[in-house]
Amino acid sequence: MSRKPNKLRIIPLGGLGEVGKNITVIEFKDDIIIIDCGLTFPEDEMLGIDVVIPDITYLFKNREKIRGIVLTHGHEDHIGALPYILKKLNLPIYGTKLTLGLVETKLKEHRIDNVTMNIAKPKDIIKLGCFEVELIKTSHSIPDSVGLAIHTPVGVIVHTGDFKIDFTPINDDVIDLHRFAEIGSKGVLALLADSTNVERPGYTMSEKTVGDTFNNIFSKAAERIIVATFASNIHRIQQIINSAELFNRKIVVSGRSMVNTINVAYELGYLKIKEGTLIDINDMGKYSNNEIVLVTTGSQGEPMSALARMASSEHRKIELLPEDTVIISASPIPGNEKTISRVINKLLEKGSKVIYESLADVHVSGHACQEELKLIHTLLKPKFFIPVHGEYRHLKRHAELAESLGMPRENIFVVDNGTVVEFTKDTGIIGQSVPAGNILVDGLGIGDVGNIVLRDRKHLSEDGLIVVVVTISKQDGSVIAGPDIISRGFVYVRESEDLMEEARGIVKNVLIECEKKNITDWATLKSSIREVLRSHLYEKIKRNPMILPIIMEV
Amino acid sequence: MSRKPNKLRIIPLGGLGEVGKNITVIEFKDDIIIIDCGLTFPEDEMLGIDVVIPDITYLFKNREKIRGIVLTHGHEDHIGALPYILKKLNLPIYGTKLTLGLVETKLKEHRIDNVTMNIAKPKDIIKLGCFEVELIKTSHSIPDSVGLAIHTPVGVIVHTGDFKIDFTPINDDVIDLHRFAEIGSKGVLALLADSTNVERPGYTMSEKTVGDTFNNIFSKAAERIIVATFASNIHRIQQIINSAELFNRKIVVSGRSMVNTINVAYELGYLKIKEGTLIDINDMGKYSNNEIVLVTTGSQGEPMSALARMASSEHRKIELLPEDTVIISASPIPGNEKTISRVINKLLEKGSKVIYESLADVHVSGHACQEELKLIHTLLKPKFFIPVHGEYRHLKRHAELAESLGMPRENIFVVDNGTVVEFTKDTGIIGQSVPAGNILVDGLGIGDVGNIVLRDRKHLSEDGLIVVVVTISKQDGSVIAGPDIISRGFVYVRESEDLMEEARGIVKNVLIECEKKNITDWATLKSSIREVLRSHLYEKIKRNPMILPIIMEV
Repeated sequence: MSRKPNKLRIIPLGGLGEVGKNITVIEFKDDIIIIDCGLTFPEDEMLGIDVVIPDITYLFKNREKIRGIVLTHGHEDHIGALPYILKKLNLPIYGTKLTLGLVETKLKEHRIDNVTMNIAKPKDIIKLGCFEVELIKTSHSIPDSVGLAIHTPVGVIVHTGDFKIDFTPINDDVIDLHRFAEIGSKGVLALLADSTNVERPGYTMSEKTVGDTFNNIFSKAAERIIVATFASNIHRIQQIINSAELFNRKIVVSGRSMVNTINVAYELGYLKIKEGTLIDINDMGKYSNNEIVLVTTGSQGEPMSALARMASSEHRKIELLPEDTVIISASPIPGNEKTISRVINKLLEKGSKVIYESLADVHVSGHACQEELKLIHTLLKPKFFIPVHGEYRHLKRHAELAESLGMPRENIFVVDNGTVVEFTKDTGIIGQSVPAGNILVDGLGIGDVGNIVLRDRKHLSEDGLIVVVVTISKQDGSVIAGPDIISRGFVYVRESEDLMEEARGIVKNVLIECEKKNITDWATLKSSIREVLRSHLYEKIKRNPMILPIIMEV
Repeated sequence: MSRKPNKLRIIPLGGLGEVGKNITVIEFKDDIIIIDCGLTFPEDEMLGIDVVIPDITYLFKNREKIRGIVLTHGHEDHIGALPYILKKLNLPIYGTKLTLGLVETKLKEHRIDNVTMNIAKPKDIIKLGCFEVELIKTSHSIPDSVGLAIHTPVGVIVHTGDFKIDFTPINDDVIDLHRFAEIGSKGVLALLADSTNVERPGYTMSEKTVGDTFNNIFSKAAERIIVATFASNIHRIQQIINSAELFNRKIVVSGRSMVNTINVAYELGYLKIKEGTLIDINDMGKYSNNEIVLVTTGSQGEPMSALARMASSEHRKIELLPEDTVIISASPIPGNEKTISRVINKLLEKGSKVIYESLADVHVSGHACQEELKLIHTLLKPKFFIPVHGEYRHLKRHAELAESLGMPRENIFVVDNGTVVEFTKDTGIIGQSVPAGNILVDGLGIGDVGNIVLRDRKHLSEDGLIVVVVTISKQDGSVIAGPDIISRGFVYVRESEDLMEEARGIVKNVLIECEKKNITDWATLKSSIREVLRSHLYEKIKRNPMILPIIMEV
């Protein structure tokens, strides 16, 4: 590759539908650092896919240059791909205590134990090749989140990570606006900033407001209280614990990921729980209902989650009672509206009181709205700006926001994953792109499910399949057995015997025709069967199942 | 059935996930009337299903009693099932002019031409058996919508239909609050009211506010303007036309359903268009870009819609230009957030200016919010209340709203589809239920896709399928040909040859074992193949494809 050796290269490298969400790469001469290493959950049309991870072809090619991975916080979309990527690239990891605590649990589950993890704290400076990476305290929906000031040979790059500005955070220091201001006054070459909430005017409410709502609800609840929230939202969980303790209730935890994170957070000192507040789910019976708060997963209506199982009476240990109060302390992630609504309906049908976002202030976002973004831009006064962490619509909007604050349009780079933005001390330009994309993970297969497999799954999901099997003599091409027709996902066979019998008749005719014409090319025979059957079925029932003709030669 | 003959029976009969949305039945002795006859679009897990219609077993059984179908307005979820149901029950239809105009187009498409349609207008009274059905003007996101006051032998039942209160509607009379008040002061036995927006506080904004936004946007647009909205939202389309005429632009219509509804609405006098405003899409080239407004479908991001095709450069006649202004004049229907977002991203990537709900007031709802509902309840002062048109969460909330206005809890019936509520002059009780449910329509098949077919489609969609074929001798049970293994939607076969070869080997072993054991029961042999292969594949790749063993005997 012919490229100027003294340019700083910034590459948002991964994030399904969102730019730079999962991975961002910073490169200068022979040094590369990686910011975050996350995964995304699949889109609807990625049938059967478990998770989606970034394509790291570029990193693999340049692996000798990579000095380490710096993590901004412990959410899945920022750490979730580590188990997959560390297997190909064993790199040292840097991050704050809670972030690395969560990474450790994750790596243990994947039986990876040879990774060097380096705990750092806000204000620490990590030296990685020619880079000095400084962690700056931010606020987010998980504790111990940081932004990064990356001191490079051509200037300072600031990456906000996911953030918001919360003046009254829970058990956590306030975002270090002083340091952002200081860095800003010394000069920032480029800013990469979170665009998630750029469409929302105003400010994101403080996490503390949710605690007030909890206290209000807890003060009125006569029986059990069940709160569903994100397992990683330790501040939220702390507030549930605070309210529980205030109203003399015990805490019971349900849901595997909830149990895991609470354990990690508690062990590392991120949760303050009074002796005796936390009780085992099996000891619940020793207390009366108005002494219990259940903390559970399932705030997105996930069908296998603890809350969904309670709602459909499938939870092994918890049966909902009509006077229970259920709080869904979360917003629907786009795409989850219907599953959540279904769980809410089921809970209400059981007679429970259900409190969700449209009824009370039981959730706040973890991302900065417009006024917060303006504050950060204003404090940092960057020369160049790359909006990240958002779909194109968000990046575009964030670019407009920066422009409205006086940044020249040509200094703003709205780019795709894989696009390289190259900087000198004074200039920024779009460089050549590098490979970037999404790798689909299905079971143990990483990247083996591609467009053809997905297209077949889609076809099968819509109209099912018909298998036509026939055994034909090698010698004379005569039909020895069959044709047999088997269908799945097409029609309810017992009620469609005529249709299936007709189909068999049609295939038989095709076979007779082909035998007459002395066709022994099985590909031709198969495609005749497929075509004749396809058009017959479409005419009869306007469905288009996948048709698989199989010929056995004997 | 033993039932008191002098009770009025009200039965919300159909609506996927929503009560009484598609069909409501009113019955007294030997008379039945049907209110609305709609369909619903399938939920995500109803793979391959086109539409969902209500189960009308109960109506079919009691067909001699049915006096007619009264329609409240022309939306799909209120008229869409007519073509399916009229084929089984040929009944006279009653409704306002536009509603019946839309029904007519629909029936023509389905080649149904023997239906009696009776146009009525607000204040008209339709005599159907012992019932007198009075139409009352309401406001909604389609013109000519009405509520119903049904005068029955035991009292007056009011059904609001879908409605909101708009004091400044477009080309339409204001909702007839006087008549609601009059009926209320004479005494209403029971109210059935729209619960769609019961979770929203305050009032729904007037349709007129959208026109102001349009004028504002039109005044600034330098090039072409493209507005996507619901084809049936004639008021919205009228406002687009008004703004176009104000700013000397021509109107071009794109999208089949948009063309159809605009034709019907214009012919029936529901759209006022100046001579020469409407031009053919093929004449667009005769005008400069700043003289054009395109009205199109696709406001929900539907992949095959005109807007989606423009966004992905697949529209035959319209190529988007960087300076075009695209207005998405609609809200996402829950579940459509992601598809809309995708279209917005693509439009922005093309450089178009895109204006959607979170940026400007380009849409208002067609349903009443809390304060409007309170007004209707207060005007009507019903003795009993059945919340309808909503999921359980909405009905529950609507019940609470009625209670907050002073209605005794025992007079409110939050019921399911199929539940009968029986009324005398003074009493209301829950009666025996009647069959109710959802019939899935897939192609020409109505109700032939059930749980088994859907379960298979789901299984196929997640991990694909493996077909194992083997030809076995009838005489000695020896393998004559095969085993052959064919897969679809499982792995990309070219890159998984080893896995497939291994699978073949495993099946071979099973066959050898079975031959040794002299197993000639093919069911046993098949289930052995299935089991051994299943557990092998799960261990190797953690996927669970459908396995179809097929044995050909020769």
